[in-house]
Amino acid sequence: MSRWEPDARGRLAQAALELFAERGFDRTTVEDIANRAGLTKRTFFRHFADKREVLFAGQDEFRAGFVSALADAPTSATPTDAIAISLAAVGASFEGRREFARERRQVIAANPELQERELVKLASVAAALADALRGRGVEEPEASLTAETAMAVFRIAFERWVADDEQRDLPELIAESLGALSRLASTP
Amino acid sequence: MSRWEPDARGRLAQAALELFAERGFDRTTVEDIANRAGLTKRTFFRHFADKREVLFAGQDEFRAGFVSALADAPTSATPTDAIAISLAAVGASFEGRREFARERRQVIAANPELQERELVKLASVAAALADALRGRGVEEPEASLTAETAMAVFRIAFERWVADDEQRDLPELIAESLGALSRLASTP
Repeated sequence: MSRWEPDARGRLAQAALELFAERGFDRTTVEDIANRAGLTKRTFFRHFADKREVLFAGQDEFRAGFVSALADAPTSATPTDAIAISLAAVGASFEGRREFARERRQVIAANPELQERELVKLASVAAALADALRGRGVEEPEASLTAETAMAVFRIAFERWVADDEQRDLPELIAESLGALSRLASTP
Repeated sequence: MSRWEPDARGRLAQAALELFAERGFDRTTVEDIANRAGLTKRTFFRHFADKREVLFAGQDEFRAGFVSALADAPTSATPTDAIAISLAAVGASFEGRREFARERRQVIAANPELQERELVKLASVAAALADALRGRGVEEPEASLTAETAMAVFRIAFERWVADDEQRDLPELIAESLGALSRLASTP
């Protein structure tokens, strides 16, 4: 598909982020993005269904990353440990993507509709994780609680990771949030 | 305002829920709702900005309920205890509203756009609670984690409360979810 367009997808994504930042998501067209990347609209549509897809293209892999890491956790692991393993694996998968994540975050922060989309994305991961936990024999409400709490941990760690002055990597911030959570819950 | 229309607001809300359930949210007009309630469109718009507002009208009070109950918690309370007090107060405020909540939930479950709106509503409560916790001197990431976890507890308890076969009241289900959470987090 991309034999004649080395890293067309990456160039399109970068061009889209630049334009979203410069003129806003709503005022950027697919044609603008293709032009900026030096490619055609047709090429754009070979890689993305629409301009929003540039920001949410990794969504299925993102969810699958959580679920498959959870599936790989030893069956002897407690729900909390299994979730910690899953969070660490997904956290590690973001290595090298901080700059993209920062730019993406600014675009989303400027657009309520994209924020809603992001909430839906995270809710769908929580639902998939709850499902996977029930598959491991965890009952309700523990399964849903563990899954929702895990996504809160991830979201909060991720927000800190993309903050301008943050140097630590995502797995470290996730570990810190998990630690804070267990301290909170064990407060007598 | 409602001198000549006793409980116009309640009649409109009930009519709207019935129609949303019968023909779907998208296929119900404000005119349909007013007709069903035996009132005029003009009266509808004195009570609600649009038909979606019927489902989300209580949103500001909902958020304020969490925040004011948190403010009333003793300053000596731990973040977790303060949040438990807040959850219990809001839970108690839903007494007598289970039937409405059940009908509302079915309408929302049938419509992805309304589901997004509901997620945004809960996220806005979490943000307000995190803010209030920071005001009590709780640092990050503890403040956000506590707030997000509280909303997960609330959402999960609420989902169970509106399930058809559930008899227990909302405060009891909230207490159960909080208990499950502390067991999970204290798992070694």
